[in-house]
Amino acid sequence: MPARQVLLLSSSKVHGYEYLEYAKDDINNLFKKNNVSTILFVPYALKDYDGYLRQVEEVFAKWGYKVNGIHKGNPVEAAEKAEAFFVGGGNTFQLLKELYDNKVLQVIRKRVLNDGIPYLGSSAGTNVATKSIHTTNDMPIVYPPSFEAIALVPFNINPHYQDPDPDSTHKGETREERILQFQEVSGAGPVLGLREGCTLLIEGDKITLKGLHKSRLFIPGKEPQEFDVGADLSFLLNV
Amino acid sequence: MPARQVLLLSSSKVHGYEYLEYAKDDINNLFKKNNVSTILFVPYALKDYDGYLRQVEEVFAKWGYKVNGIHKGNPVEAAEKAEAFFVGGGNTFQLLKELYDNKVLQVIRKRVLNDGIPYLGSSAGTNVATKSIHTTNDMPIVYPPSFEAIALVPFNINPHYQDPDPDSTHKGETREERILQFQEVSGAGPVLGLREGCTLLIEGDKITLKGLHKSRLFIPGKEPQEFDVGADLSFLLNV
Ligand SMILES: [Ca+2]
Ligand SMILES: [Ca+2]
Repeated sequence: MPARQVLLLSSSKVHGYEYLEYAKDDINNLFKKNNVSTILFVPYALKDYDGYLRQVEEVFAKWGYKVNGIHKGNPVEAAEKAEAFFVGGGNTFQLLKELYDNKVLQVIRKRVLNDGIPYLGSSAGTNVATKSIHTTNDMPIVYPPSFEAIALVPFNINPHYQDPDPDSTHKGETREERILQFQEVSGAGPVLGLREGCTLLIEGDKITLKGLHKSRLFIPGKEPQEFDVGADLSFLLNV
Repeated sequence: MPARQVLLLSSSKVHGYEYLEYAKDDINNLFKKNNVSTILFVPYALKDYDGYLRQVEEVFAKWGYKVNGIHKGNPVEAAEKAEAFFVGGGNTFQLLKELYDNKVLQVIRKRVLNDGIPYLGSSAGTNVATKSIHTTNDMPIVYPPSFEAIALVPFNINPHYQDPDPDSTHKGETREERILQFQEVSGAGPVLGLREGCTLLIEGDKITLKGLHKSRLFIPGKEPQEFDVGADLSFLLNV
């Protein structure tokens, strides 16, 4: 069984960088070492699939890759043949619902875990790559048939993780409070809070923090813990 | 058919006020004119039902009301006999799931719409009083059997509504962007953005904005519009 090759970005946009630019080296490493020339793009998280595809094509063309949209033909056939997946951000509920409705969720899972096809996810595309979408920040604009997701990793991620603003007078829950509420639910496991600019690289059973900033890990019953760029988080496969 | 009597708060806590204090007069008006002496409290949005009940009891005791917890006996019987409902905030997904699991959602709907039993909701308790929970800000920590809610009104509310922060470098969607994404979904209707400190009073077919601040109304296909405290929003029953 080939090793899984997964790169999960907290976000595609980071303050001060162009679209995907902050993660360019890690994205290129992922695709180059797998000899990828064409990427299958999954635009389901936004409404305008063609517009989203054009935006992504433009960036990847500069970097030397061709991009196909999964919505342009039979999605299952496209997923079965893909050399690499990129699942973009937008609304996580809409994305997950479309993955189910188009019957590609299990196909993507199988191709990444069994065939070693590289998977790049950003924001909502990171949420759906984890165990479930229980820790998305998005508004539940549509009702998916389940919150269970592609499960390329057996834990949860909170993308766009934000620290509490000490000056805020707002009374809505902080991000940390929301994650801790989730972890009161029976069966809830670890949640990795990926700040914007943070990414997670999974190569087989090795998990490494990448990107620009520290990340914050929540394990039920433990104090939240900060991990530096470069930290080995492989233990999350066995928590 | 008696007129529905519903008061929906954006939040229970507002900066500079004690719990529920900013809405004390409107809450008292609602309960006094309906000769309420005992309130049935629904604590399902938080995990610690008894602790939540004690907090609410303490406040309402000062104002001269007795409070019962719906979780203390048979929930359906309690809802059938209630003089008034208060559904508190916390996590909207958990609240809605418990309303379904305890089979009280339709009972509350019937008692408010048919019997004129007053309903006070705050935050998550406001979300579940509307058409659906599609416009909650909460994290989807549990999977409810549906996003359809009690539907005391035929539109959606976004509680804790926040204006974009012009100084923010964060790349997650603004609240307005999230609401507009929802309204791209076919069948989505009006969404009232209730800032913290804003409340909505529904008396039969009359809807009035109350509280401390303006509110922002999103109607699909129209520019968002601001409404002052005191504005008549009864037209939302027919949009
Ligand atoms: Ca998003
Ligand atoms: Ca909440």
